[in-house]
Amino acid sequence: MATASDRYWVKDLKPGTELDELFVVRSKDVRQRRGGGPYLALTLGDRTGEVTGLVWENVERLGKLCEVGQVLRIRGQVQRYNQRLQVVVRGAEPVPAGEVDEALFVRSSEIDPDILWQRLIALVEKVSDPHLKQLLFRVFSDPEVAQRLKVAPAARGMHHAFRSGLLEHTVSMATSARALARHYRLHEDMVVTGALLHDLGKIWELEIDASIEYTDDGRLLGHLAMEVLYVERTIAELGSFPGEHRRHLLHILLSHHGEYEFGSPRRPKTPEALLVHMADNLDSKMAGMLEAIGSGGDDEDAWSEFSRILDRHVYRRRLPAPDNGSTGS
Amino acid sequence: MATASDRYWVKDLKPGTELDELFVVRSKDVRQRRGGGPYLALTLGDRTGEVTGLVWENVERLGKLCEVGQVLRIRGQVQRYNQRLQVVVRGAEPVPAGEVDEALFVRSSEIDPDILWQRLIALVEKVSDPHLKQLLFRVFSDPEVAQRLKVAPAARGMHHAFRSGLLEHTVSMATSARALARHYRLHEDMVVTGALLHDLGKIWELEIDASIEYTDDGRLLGHLAMEVLYVERTIAELGSFPGEHRRHLLHILLSHHGEYEFGSPRRPKTPEALLVHMADNLDSKMAGMLEAIGSGGDDEDAWSEFSRILDRHVYRRRLPAPDNGSTGS
Amino acid sequence: MATASDRYWVKDLKPGTELDELFVVRSKDVRQRRGGGPYLALTLGDRTGEVTGLVWENVERLGKLCEVGQVLRIRGQVQRYNQRLQVVVRGAEPVPAGEVDEALFVRSSEIDPDILWQRLIALVEKVSDPHLKQLLFRVFSDPEVAQRLKVAPAARGMHHAFRSGLLEHTVSMATSARALARHYRLHEDMVVTGALLHDLGKIWELEIDASIEYTDDGRLLGHLAMEVLYVERTIAELGSFPGEHRRHLLHILLSHHGEYEFGSPRRPKTPEALLVHMADNLDSKMAGMLEAIGSGGDDEDAWSEFSRILDRHVYRRRLPAPDNGSTGS
Amino acid sequence: MATASDRYWVKDLKPGTELDELFVVRSKDVRQRRGGGPYLALTLGDRTGEVTGLVWENVERLGKLCEVGQVLRIRGQVQRYNQRLQVVVRGAEPVPAGEVDEALFVRSSEIDPDILWQRLIALVEKVSDPHLKQLLFRVFSDPEVAQRLKVAPAARGMHHAFRSGLLEHTVSMATSARALARHYRLHEDMVVTGALLHDLGKIWELEIDASIEYTDDGRLLGHLAMEVLYVERTIAELGSFPGEHRRHLLHILLSHHGEYEFGSPRRPKTPEALLVHMADNLDSKMAGMLEAIGSGGDDEDAWSEFSRILDRHVYRRRLPAPDNGSTGS
Amino acid sequence: MATASDRYWVKDLKPGTELDELFVVRSKDVRQRRGGGPYLALTLGDRTGEVTGLVWENVERLGKLCEVGQVLRIRGQVQRYNQRLQVVVRGAEPVPAGEVDEALFVRSSEIDPDILWQRLIALVEKVSDPHLKQLLFRVFSDPEVAQRLKVAPAARGMHHAFRSGLLEHTVSMATSARALARHYRLHEDMVVTGALLHDLGKIWELEIDASIEYTDDGRLLGHLAMEVLYVERTIAELGSFPGEHRRHLLHILLSHHGEYEFGSPRRPKTPEALLVHMADNLDSKMAGMLEAIGSGGDDEDAWSEFSRILDRHVYRRRLPAPDNGSTGS
Amino acid sequence: MATASDRYWVKDLKPGTELDELFVVRSKDVRQRRGGGPYLALTLGDRTGEVTGLVWENVERLGKLCEVGQVLRIRGQVQRYNQRLQVVVRGAEPVPAGEVDEALFVRSSEIDPDILWQRLIALVEKVSDPHLKQLLFRVFSDPEVAQRLKVAPAARGMHHAFRSGLLEHTVSMATSARALARHYRLHEDMVVTGALLHDLGKIWELEIDASIEYTDDGRLLGHLAMEVLYVERTIAELGSFPGEHRRHLLHILLSHHGEYEFGSPRRPKTPEALLVHMADNLDSKMAGMLEAIGSGGDDEDAWSEFSRILDRHVYRRRLPAPDNGSTGS
Repeated sequence: MATASDRYWVKDLKPGTELDELFVVRSKDVRQRRGGGPYLALTLGDRTGEVTGLVWENVERLGKLCEVGQVLRIRGQVQRYNQRLQVVVRGAEPVPAGEVDEALFVRSSEIDPDILWQRLIALVEKVSDPHLKQLLFRVFSDPEVAQRLKVAPAARGMHHAFRSGLLEHTVSMATSARALARHYRLHEDMVVTGALLHDLGKIWELEIDASIEYTDDGRLLGHLAMEVLYVERTIAELGSFPGEHRRHLLHILLSHHGEYEFGSPRRPKTPEALLVHMADNLDSKMAGMLEAIGSGGDDEDAWSEFSRILDRHVYRRRLPAPDNGSTGS
Repeated sequence: MATASDRYWVKDLKPGTELDELFVVRSKDVRQRRGGGPYLALTLGDRTGEVTGLVWENVERLGKLCEVGQVLRIRGQVQRYNQRLQVVVRGAEPVPAGEVDEALFVRSSEIDPDILWQRLIALVEKVSDPHLKQLLFRVFSDPEVAQRLKVAPAARGMHHAFRSGLLEHTVSMATSARALARHYRLHEDMVVTGALLHDLGKIWELEIDASIEYTDDGRLLGHLAMEVLYVERTIAELGSFPGEHRRHLLHILLSHHGEYEFGSPRRPKTPEALLVHMADNLDSKMAGMLEAIGSGGDDEDAWSEFSRILDRHVYRRRLPAPDNGSTGS
Repeated sequence: MATASDRYWVKDLKPGTELDELFVVRSKDVRQRRGGGPYLALTLGDRTGEVTGLVWENVERLGKLCEVGQVLRIRGQVQRYNQRLQVVVRGAEPVPAGEVDEALFVRSSEIDPDILWQRLIALVEKVSDPHLKQLLFRVFSDPEVAQRLKVAPAARGMHHAFRSGLLEHTVSMATSARALARHYRLHEDMVVTGALLHDLGKIWELEIDASIEYTDDGRLLGHLAMEVLYVERTIAELGSFPGEHRRHLLHILLSHHGEYEFGSPRRPKTPEALLVHMADNLDSKMAGMLEAIGSGGDDEDAWSEFSRILDRHVYRRRLPAPDNGSTGS
Repeated sequence: MATASDRYWVKDLKPGTELDELFVVRSKDVRQRRGGGPYLALTLGDRTGEVTGLVWENVERLGKLCEVGQVLRIRGQVQRYNQRLQVVVRGAEPVPAGEVDEALFVRSSEIDPDILWQRLIALVEKVSDPHLKQLLFRVFSDPEVAQRLKVAPAARGMHHAFRSGLLEHTVSMATSARALARHYRLHEDMVVTGALLHDLGKIWELEIDASIEYTDDGRLLGHLAMEVLYVERTIAELGSFPGEHRRHLLHILLSHHGEYEFGSPRRPKTPEALLVHMADNLDSKMAGMLEAIGSGGDDEDAWSEFSRILDRHVYRRRLPAPDNGSTGS
Repeated sequence: MATASDRYWVKDLKPGTELDELFVVRSKDVRQRRGGGPYLALTLGDRTGEVTGLVWENVERLGKLCEVGQVLRIRGQVQRYNQRLQVVVRGAEPVPAGEVDEALFVRSSEIDPDILWQRLIALVEKVSDPHLKQLLFRVFSDPEVAQRLKVAPAARGMHHAFRSGLLEHTVSMATSARALARHYRLHEDMVVTGALLHDLGKIWELEIDASIEYTDDGRLLGHLAMEVLYVERTIAELGSFPGEHRRHLLHILLSHHGEYEFGSPRRPKTPEALLVHMADNLDSKMAGMLEAIGSGGDDEDAWSEFSRILDRHVYRRRLPAPDNGSTGS
Repeated sequence: MATASDRYWVKDLKPGTELDELFVVRSKDVRQRRGGGPYLALTLGDRTGEVTGLVWENVERLGKLCEVGQVLRIRGQVQRYNQRLQVVVRGAEPVPAGEVDEALFVRSSEIDPDILWQRLIALVEKVSDPHLKQLLFRVFSDPEVAQRLKVAPAARGMHHAFRSGLLEHTVSMATSARALARHYRLHEDMVVTGALLHDLGKIWELEIDASIEYTDDGRLLGHLAMEVLYVERTIAELGSFPGEHRRHLLHILLSHHGEYEFGSPRRPKTPEALLVHMADNLDSKMAGMLEAIGSGGDDEDAWSEFSRILDRHVYRRRLPAPDNGSTGS
């Protein structure tokens, strides 16, 4: 089975390269040649990105092979056109579904979702408050939640917009929120609970497939309302959840976007709600900035592509860490 | 029992008038006289407004009588001080609770709440869609809802900020929304249902007593979330409510403030949601403007007091309706 | 003469269709073929929309026939290119001007302008106030006004951006404004007068031809100023128009965009001005939303194209009206 | 007759001073003494400012003398109370209207209005374009315009909020606009014409009396619309005014606030309109800043009172001009 | 010497209490009694707050004792007036400067400034990068910096607006920023350096005395520019500071307010700058919220006074920490 | 050597023209022909603008000649494609660097930079204040400053975005600022000094080459900080510069963008700072408007291309100056 070890990734393509590599077909378009006759314009992808593929010859035969979602062994040459790369395809052979590792072709978190899940469960286990702990166990032992959360992205673009991105964001943000809760002597358990549930509704707001799209409920109700309804239902099932706990927790969920103009019907009015909002904001923007630094463009460019979440270009030159390794340890 | 017929209302007080009239005590403050000794500063009210009452003599005896909420027969003189009226109280006698009509002392809708309630029920009865009709009957036959809705105000200030103001606003706005739904050929039943439920959460958001105040849940969760949770719970009880109906209805509730910056976590994405939002907005602002025209200041002033909901002064001179009565018929 | 009955409308084109149909030429471009030699890129239209037409053969001969505004009988095939449809033209014959019904080729209101005009006159006739009635008759009996208003669009894009769109918007909005004026017991005649005149200046602000464009006066003075100047001039001609009527009416025109940032030099300070503004706003946005639902994309798409006036996508799934027909009756 | 030469001005009052000076009564209030009995609270003014006057004795007799608008000879002592000065009045005698110079008691431009008027006429006379020159002569030879313009303020607060302030602002701003028009090689005559007419409507927007207030037309129509209507009417009388001149000029008036949010229904789209807007803005803000520096507080304070037009405090320490007099020459 | 142990603090005053306690005079005003004669209005304070003191008797003698800054032994009674407390002073004796602990009377950090300073130095010592470490030592060994930083407040209001508030904020924020830098694998040393210097200019921007006021340089240049100039000068003295280090560090200082509208001439374009900005924002808002919860009003009030930095009231009811002490450990 | 006298400028190209003219290559792209084989897409420019050039024949040979920066003698035909002009190149010959006047190919100020420099020096020489004069001489006698300032643009787009544009803007704006300073009796020398230095940092913020780009320091520090640091350093070298002069001058630089949201860390708090800001704003916008009028589109178009700095289209029809030449003299 084809593996990642010696692959020519999309992100590493260079003009002039002769390719013989596997890609998944993300879209297919039969177009009219100016000189007469049809040609194929494909979007070829792997988990590191996408590139246009053009088929000028054997259009009919190849057109039949190239269904969206199909993995193909592509032979051809990389060329630069209008500042962007494209692959002129000379040959393409379908690869049977059983013979490929699908993980090569879906953009996803760099951390294994099972490891992320273990970290999440570890965070739950450290919660001392029995009511919050019981609620979290009830939520995360719901098989639908577990199944969806392991694959859900955190957004369509902006940040963590990839498979398991929501889980990665949730774990990272809950971890730093817990540390900050301790620093400011807040109610750690409530902060962790709010952090773990603050974006839960996204498992029903977004669908990840060939691309990430909003669901109808996502557009009409939004993740904030869906997670509030879900948590309320779960609390009702528990029976004995204290009213003041419920009020604090629902307030965190209803205010976690921080300001009305970002879709929060409430603004944070408790220290725990303020912290969940700000740790969420930090994790999202930091991830967006680090993704901008790591992706796109030539490695020698001092500046990243334009980052939409930050509305700016990002400086990519990093200072070296000092020898004794104080950084990143 | 004292009645409204020949009463000297707060809104009609004039400098120089000698009073002998009933008022309720809204607040009481014992203050230090500059020349030594205490005096009493009262807020006296009836359903048309409030005025300061000052007690310079017999402070000790009167201070004991003047509890907040007590109705008193007040003798004294109206004076102007710093552009505002005040009553210099010469005598005050308590009136037993059973001998007064409380309705004289609470600012409230000019329409009887029972009549408003009949109008609301009439609107429900005209709904044809069986699911929506059943839901509305379930909601409005909940005794807690009925009892609270009959007295709840629609706001702390701004518009309809008085007893039964929420019911008055709901009925007025649902009536005009239904007419507009017909004009634009929308789903009338969904519009009426959304209109009747759009502010329901305010029965738990505000408390009316001597004054109107937010509840803790009102501040931390808000009426929008509370009515969404209540409607969801009622739908769950009904069992057979269609999913697409639920989605349309919850979307109306979640988007009825129209824009994120006004606390809507969603913006209207269906014609019915757009209409409910805009009819709500119109009814609120129109009521605010008409209240501004009707209240405060001298009748001959061409301009109203500053209206906070409209952020402006309002022109009070109305054109006369033409003879043939096309207006207001 | 060609009629609408059995026509293949632009909005109904599908990939693969073989066409033999009339279209008007909206634009023509001679382009350079990549392989050498010229080709023609046309914009072909009818009253339901526009589509690109490409001429690869007989370019010289066809190029001479294809003047902008000319109606052609087109033979060719519909193809999909880059998610959009285009017609590859094999043959084109000019159709003499006298043999075609021009109404087939101009996007226009679905309601006959003469019917809209009758509705407008009916609204005028119901005005009771003699001064306002006389003013309205004077305005709408001005032949220039009548001629322009019957064809003028209400906007370049956004809403009612088609022939007679201004008249459709004016009549719809004045009708609902009158109903709301009665609901809120305002001066109906002033509301109707303001509603009928609120966008009159657009007959000089926009020019409709092959496309809708702003006039120089439209850009430099704007419809608001032009209608204020026109109404003032007409009032001066009437001689006996009461000053307080003039003040109320001019205020409505000067404030009908509601807020400074939308180009209103005044904000509404009378209930009538507030109502005209809000009914205008409602009619514009509702029309924009209903146009978005009705146009573009596949019928099965749950979501409309992006609507610029609403700055969002619109949910296209409508609930069925209940059996007993309460909706739309 | 009392003159300005040796007067004790309001702006120069100091705690402890024994006064025997003329002031005009701007407002009068009979208040209730805490210890019983009435006292008088007056606002006393002259053209440099206002101060509170308190009458504790002979209240009844003095109360009759102190009508608003009456000039009184006041004897009393200046005291500081709550960081503000007040005059404790021991005696007051009315001064007959014929015996006082009214100019002492009205805040007004430091430049004589007749001199300002001459400067305005000089600006008109330098206009070469015959159409613009004729228009300006027609406008400024209208006796109502001349009479009102000589006394009108430019605002209620903010800047030039005093008698003849509008004329001072108009002349200053037209002078600098003409210089800038020459610098940028624009149409000087159009710039000067626009500058001289840009605020003309304020002569009907504001009323100056004891205080400066908006007129009803000022609030409902605004100066911008009123001057556009007036200029249009005057152009119609002239008969031969070229259409392109009219379009340029009306555009300047309609866009002179620069942005929609400041009440301009158009934004400047010609260099002449841009210049009139920006010269107006500069003159207003600079006047506001210089007034803030010159007024209020102790001369040694480094910072002015809070300036509302600039939304900030202003630094009052000026650098000395160098010896050779390059500054201010 | 009077100590804090058994003191009756301003924050603990209750109506009716008979006082015999030390306070400092923060302001003094001689006012005119309505019934004739003067009285004294004092502002009395200690490090927990301020209260009004009124002197009705022996005004002349006590007026001479009560200089601003003087500590007095006050005898009198606490009363409530207009919802606020005041002290009616019956007697007052001056306390010699040497006999009082000044720390009782200045609002200041609850942590000893020397302990804060040790924490700051500890943060510096953990920096590994030699250039950054040398720079920090140079800055914090400047005696002027050390002396000013130990007492400087972080703001006039909002948050940390008390003696040593800047140091408390700097240490708290640098500590959490370092933890977050490690979490996101950023350059810890640069983050700590930026955090320690980000508000340094405030030692020249604010003056703390009886109250906290801006300096002239604070208003005209601002702390951001002043610290940039100071760091640049210190870097120039060091000689060998690498250019890329300087660029990163100056960028952090120039962008630490995050957005243009908060006075940042740059927005964060490196992860380190983004983190310093967001950790600063978090520490400021969290401190503001915790101060709001801890101060003002009755302990039983569920809601704090209005918090200006957060533009809202804050919910004061805290959840109890679970038994096993996971919170705050 | 080729000169400007009889040149066919890019801005004057018309469809159908047969060209034989010199152009510089601004970019080069080898593209894939749809019909197979490569072709060249060039950007050809001179100092008046840019046009696309397409090479269909002899691609290999010409591809080698066409390096970016090379001047070529181009033979070919101008054609219109998609509303834009392009040149179909039939032949191209390189022109040796020594044989061409480079000034023909770089967009630059229409005024000779040496003349602009003389005007700047003349402005410096008229400064009377010895400290400011000395500072200005020190700055402009720095060879790096002189060399960079003569070529630097004032922006990447918007206004003065060409060689020597910064110098042109500086001189124009300082000239008008001085006239306005005299009009308002401000400190002329400080205004001129602030005006001459207000954008100095742009010589390090932007790099002009084939195109105009930001430097790394430009993005991370910005011109405002860079000029403040430079001026501070120069002041330190002078030794005797008075503190109050420094404070006023640095304040002008730190506030010259006028508002926080435009990147000013301070807002103008002195009249001189306010004037420098507003004269800068006027010069920038006026230049942007005049550039929009002068460039692009057909001369007969009444409206300019969309101007980004003004966010609007500009009216291009100018009124004729009256006969006696009052305009522009």
